[in-house]
Amino acid sequence: MGEVDVAANRAAPRYSRGENARRVAWALAGPLFRFSPRPCFAWRRLLLRLFGARVGRAAHVYPTTVVAMPWNLTLGEEASLGEHVFVYDLGPVSVGARATVALRAHLCAGSHDLRRADLPLLKPPIVIGAQAFVAADAFVGPGVTVGEGAVVGARAVVVRDVAPWTVVAGNPARVIGTRSLS
Amino acid sequence: MGEVDVAANRAAPRYSRGENARRVAWALAGPLFRFSPRPCFAWRRLLLRLFGARVGRAAHVYPTTVVAMPWNLTLGEEASLGEHVFVYDLGPVSVGARATVALRAHLCAGSHDLRRADLPLLKPPIVIGAQAFVAADAFVGPGVTVGEGAVVGARAVVVRDVAPWTVVAGNPARVIGTRSLS
Amino acid sequence: MGEVDVAANRAAPRYSRGENARRVAWALAGPLFRFSPRPCFAWRRLLLRLFGARVGRAAHVYPTTVVAMPWNLTLGEEASLGEHVFVYDLGPVSVGARATVALRAHLCAGSHDLRRADLPLLKPPIVIGAQAFVAADAFVGPGVTVGEGAVVGARAVVVRDVAPWTVVAGNPARVIGTRSLS
Repeated sequence: MGEVDVAANRAAPRYSRGENARRVAWALAGPLFRFSPRPCFAWRRLLLRLFGARVGRAAHVYPTTVVAMPWNLTLGEEASLGEHVFVYDLGPVSVGARATVALRAHLCAGSHDLRRADLPLLKPPIVIGAQAFVAADAFVGPGVTVGEGAVVGARAVVVRDVAPWTVVAGNPARVIGTRSLS
Repeated sequence: MGEVDVAANRAAPRYSRGENARRVAWALAGPLFRFSPRPCFAWRRLLLRLFGARVGRAAHVYPTTVVAMPWNLTLGEEASLGEHVFVYDLGPVSVGARATVALRAHLCAGSHDLRRADLPLLKPPIVIGAQAFVAADAFVGPGVTVGEGAVVGARAVVVRDVAPWTVVAGNPARVIGTRSLS
Repeated sequence: MGEVDVAANRAAPRYSRGENARRVAWALAGPLFRFSPRPCFAWRRLLLRLFGARVGRAAHVYPTTVVAMPWNLTLGEEASLGEHVFVYDLGPVSVGARATVALRAHLCAGSHDLRRADLPLLKPPIVIGAQAFVAADAFVGPGVTVGEGAVVGARAVVVRDVAPWTVVAGNPARVIGTRSLS
């Protein structure tokens, strides 16, 4: 079966020198974000932009939202990342205009190639389409695109793409309906 | 398909003025709860009651338990809300006598109508019956009643009512047995 | 149906006097662990060993990893417990050499016998085999053995044993493949 080579995994460079410097700076700046008063959305947008995020007008991010690497984040106009949302954006994460990622959801844009002995770190992108709604506690895995207007149900676990204007739920998530707006 | 109207959603009043005042007061009082020593159950019952909760004799709530809005919470005698339990009680949440909500479970009494363009906030109730047991990491969704004595398994995701003295598990949760006490 | 007897449950001794003393000491020592700088893996190994854990060479545990009771933990060489992993080791938890427990996974070695009126606390062991990989947000339940080299997928919920070198996913988890290393 071969043997997992943790030493090789740990010795492999994961981030560029510049990225490591940004990670340290972002960790140091963390309290400015986490302890900001809840209504100060503009202040948090400013902080995210200072660290390289592309953040549209009136996007809402909360003090309890965790963004691992702002420089990999793109937020459309009026998008929102809810309270306690966890954005593990080792790869690029994009949330479209007027899309909502609700309470405690996890966007996980990181993985490992488990078939290689050295378990190399992978950084696949995540795309959440415009007007989509990722409900509370949902999990969106690496490489997934959630289509425009789609709904990912509460606690759903999405590891494949979700078609536009469909509704998925469960673990693994399955299509349970379609969405239309009245 | 129509278009999501985030501006209308944000402009809609979500809480009454009185409720907003209570939310601020509860946030300010938070450290008195979170930093209380673990054995001080009576103290936390007192705090919850001061903020409008109906709390029965000998109910157990831990310092790490999160109650979003105590005024929407009813706890029966000897009920318990375990460590890191998250009670998102935008609507009324009732936990019956001698019922247990275990470690890190989430009672989510809030939702949005995703078929309306302005995504109005909904606040459906949750009822956990007497003697029921909601296991670790489980999720109980908006509008759900968990019947008396029922068991919601670890990490189960419940979006429909659970009949009394049944056992459910999985995501979505399905009936996997019945419970009787010896 | 009988009646749940919470008073009997609470009156039952859960931990020995010695164990309770260790719990208090570990709580007091917590900040030395949680606020240690991320690269200080050796320091956290030392702390865990001082509190009774058996920790192999080069095992990695992060400041945000939560270990409830270090004296019940065994970590093999080059094993790792990722960020925000929650090890609820009321019973013994063993993670084999070069195994990885990823971001935010939950190893839950505690349960209750829900068929007895006094809901006695159970402390079944968990064993994670060498070279296994428990992915982000997964849940491993009480009494479970994850075989050597097996993969527990992201957010998978494992309540039965997982055979060596298999891949499981979903809630409840099912076998979806096998793993081999190249």
